[in-house]
Amino acid sequence: MLAPMTEQQVTIALLGCGTVGGGVLELLHNNAARMAARVGAPLRVKHVLVQDGDKPRTAACDRRWLTTDAQRALGDPEVDVVVEVVGGDKRALHFIEQAIAHGKSVVTANKLVLASHGAALLAKASAAGVDLAFEGAVGGGMPIVRTLRAAFAGDRVTAITGILNGTSNYVLTRMLDTKTSFADAVSSAQQLGYAEADPSMDVDGLDAAHKLAVLALLGFGAKLDFSQLSVEGISDIEAVDHDYAQRFGFCIKHLVIGRDHGEALEMRVHAALIPQRSVLANVSGVLNAVLLEGEAVGPSLVYGRGAGALPTAVSVVGDVMDVSRSVLAGAAGLQTRSIRYAKRPVRAMSEVRTRYYLRFTVHDEPGVLATIAGSLGRQQVSIEQLVQAIAEPHAKQPASVVMLTHRAREGHLQAALDELASASFMAQPARMLRIEEV
Amino acid sequence: MLAPMTEQQVTIALLGCGTVGGGVLELLHNNAARMAARVGAPLRVKHVLVQDGDKPRTAACDRRWLTTDAQRALGDPEVDVVVEVVGGDKRALHFIEQAIAHGKSVVTANKLVLASHGAALLAKASAAGVDLAFEGAVGGGMPIVRTLRAAFAGDRVTAITGILNGTSNYVLTRMLDTKTSFADAVSSAQQLGYAEADPSMDVDGLDAAHKLAVLALLGFGAKLDFSQLSVEGISDIEAVDHDYAQRFGFCIKHLVIGRDHGEALEMRVHAALIPQRSVLANVSGVLNAVLLEGEAVGPSLVYGRGAGALPTAVSVVGDVMDVSRSVLAGAAGLQTRSIRYAKRPVRAMSEVRTRYYLRFTVHDEPGVLATIAGSLGRQQVSIEQLVQAIAEPHAKQPASVVMLTHRAREGHLQAALDELASASFMAQPARMLRIEEV
Repeated sequence: MLAPMTEQQVTIALLGCGTVGGGVLELLHNNAARMAARVGAPLRVKHVLVQDGDKPRTAACDRRWLTTDAQRALGDPEVDVVVEVVGGDKRALHFIEQAIAHGKSVVTANKLVLASHGAALLAKASAAGVDLAFEGAVGGGMPIVRTLRAAFAGDRVTAITGILNGTSNYVLTRMLDTKTSFADAVSSAQQLGYAEADPSMDVDGLDAAHKLAVLALLGFGAKLDFSQLSVEGISDIEAVDHDYAQRFGFCIKHLVIGRDHGEALEMRVHAALIPQRSVLANVSGVLNAVLLEGEAVGPSLVYGRGAGALPTAVSVVGDVMDVSRSVLAGAAGLQTRSIRYAKRPVRAMSEVRTRYYLRFTVHDEPGVLATIAGSLGRQQVSIEQLVQAIAEPHAKQPASVVMLTHRAREGHLQAALDELASASFMAQPARMLRIEEV
Repeated sequence: MLAPMTEQQVTIALLGCGTVGGGVLELLHNNAARMAARVGAPLRVKHVLVQDGDKPRTAACDRRWLTTDAQRALGDPEVDVVVEVVGGDKRALHFIEQAIAHGKSVVTANKLVLASHGAALLAKASAAGVDLAFEGAVGGGMPIVRTLRAAFAGDRVTAITGILNGTSNYVLTRMLDTKTSFADAVSSAQQLGYAEADPSMDVDGLDAAHKLAVLALLGFGAKLDFSQLSVEGISDIEAVDHDYAQRFGFCIKHLVIGRDHGEALEMRVHAALIPQRSVLANVSGVLNAVLLEGEAVGPSLVYGRGAGALPTAVSVVGDVMDVSRSVLAGAAGLQTRSIRYAKRPVRAMSEVRTRYYLRFTVHDEPGVLATIAGSLGRQQVSIEQLVQAIAEPHAKQPASVVMLTHRAREGHLQAALDELASASFMAQPARMLRIEEV
């Protein structure tokens, strides 16, 4: 049942030929006949923009496609679809804007650009009657963008909870499995190629936060300033926190959390304790997952490889095929027009209400527990469970007081912790982690 | 950022107003403005086909829409999109064929019709230049159809493993959690409304098999006769099998399994032991999940409510919105043309190779184990682990011999079991369950 082939074809300019770009060329090469049948015409690569024209490339890259001249690729009237996988910020943004201005549909996997400029680019694409597709920007090998944009378009999405940074998830999984420190787990991730030499973008939570901003645009129709997100990483977590979390029936995951309360959103990225029986608890290593909650659809989860050349390339190529079909049908811009968004207020962290895990490292003096409980109580923070690791009497070693609280307002909790910070018995700053029921 | 509203609208005929149809009307009513913005024009219901025009309906149903005359709905030139949720077989098939013949795009949630006639209907829709969309047909509230059709269209899907019948999954979960019998678990499912008065379609595996046939059409491009699928239910499983499975580190789930070996497919539906650490092991109760394996994308899972009025309605309405956008752009048929399929051979079950769980209930005579091991060994089936629940010497109670085998060809295993069936010590037929590493 092959479609009758016409003289038509779809012409592609690929910007960037790194790991993802190479994967895109390999898929286009290896599955060319099947893709042509499913699109209705062959997909033809004409330009591949690189910075070094002499560097070796994948065998799927015909060297005649290589160019170091962006204008040659972007300005070519034969090009229908521009695939942007150069990564980074300003240069990629400029390329996407230029491609749209030239009336070309764009496929990108660039979460950094989309997190800050997604709404503006969608508006430009919509006005130009072209598509801007970006399945590859969030969770390489899982179909979360399409799910929010199309599958659940008839529902109201109320919550998005995800594990969206493979490096952080690997580090936390490694700390738990091997009882190792944060620094050692990062080294292990670097040795395996799961972390960059400078891992800060990953372990500081910024990469995950960029992805949450993209999901909020689709799921909540929220055009946010990136600064509206509250972002924390995982570098403060110690092996002992994993032990206590386990003892209470939880595990520690780095989460993105978006909630739509109608009048305002919650948008936060941080490590949290989640129940061991949660579906997200079994998302280990470099895998990613997003749990959606829809008013009508209930809970729904997508899960897959969060990064890597080929999983991301599959998402990029899926978009290329969709966009190409629209181009051939003379209906470019079909996807993009379906995304609606507006500015939305975001709740300050001090207004967020959740449960908390608190670990105090204290010199064992009389009245320590009474003082802690008193400070918390005055702020309406009530203790649900408590473990006290008592040091030997008159020992030099500090003791630990670890507790889970009932739901409380974060501003109140912070006030109590601020008050306790100056207490004479505090041997180290208190460790606070939020508890999320997902 | 609302799209400029034109005079355009998309006119819908809804066939059937039961649980799913009522849910569709409620979503169209409650989210009308947002949907209009995302589609680019209002969605207007004109006809609702019912069998009893006097029965009470959801408040979202304007009684002027009701008709008992299918031709009035299908033959109306104003109707753009026909939504078929009457269910059942022949009548629904006839309606879908008629709608396509009238040049209307169709959205359906009818797995029964699609399992047997999906390829033929897609060919008709494609020839007529209309869409046939069916996200709601498999796993109500999870985006599996869109994932296979579009998100992973650039990859080669090699395996589809799923839990696709909520009733069976509830019954198995209940048997495990409460150590109850199959019959009691079915009664409990019926009391909660999770099982029909006649639960056979669910617990015999047919409903799940229909869904697998639809997924194989999309994922493997396979136009199958439904009789090519090997289908078993869960009614033979006893509480003791759950106990033994747990002891070996497994749990029992009713699975659909499709594998693409290139020269042939494996297509089978049956209960199986899966490792407790598998992501599918935590899919409990009436939830559904599908784990895909793509050559490039690796493992990817979608998970959600498998049934229920609103989850299925969300999928149906998502399709209505997609199809409506294509209709407005003059590009109807865009989705449907992307699905390619061909007749594919399916491996006989006797050719399938996997591991097995075997439970023999035997009168404790000397040489029992030697006879069992001998029969298996002559067929190249080797034992990996064995638990023998030895009865008291000279006891009247039969004893159990339970084992896990290494991978073996199913034809060989069956030959050994056939030979053993006539052995004098066999107190009951042997229980065999396959073991799947998912």
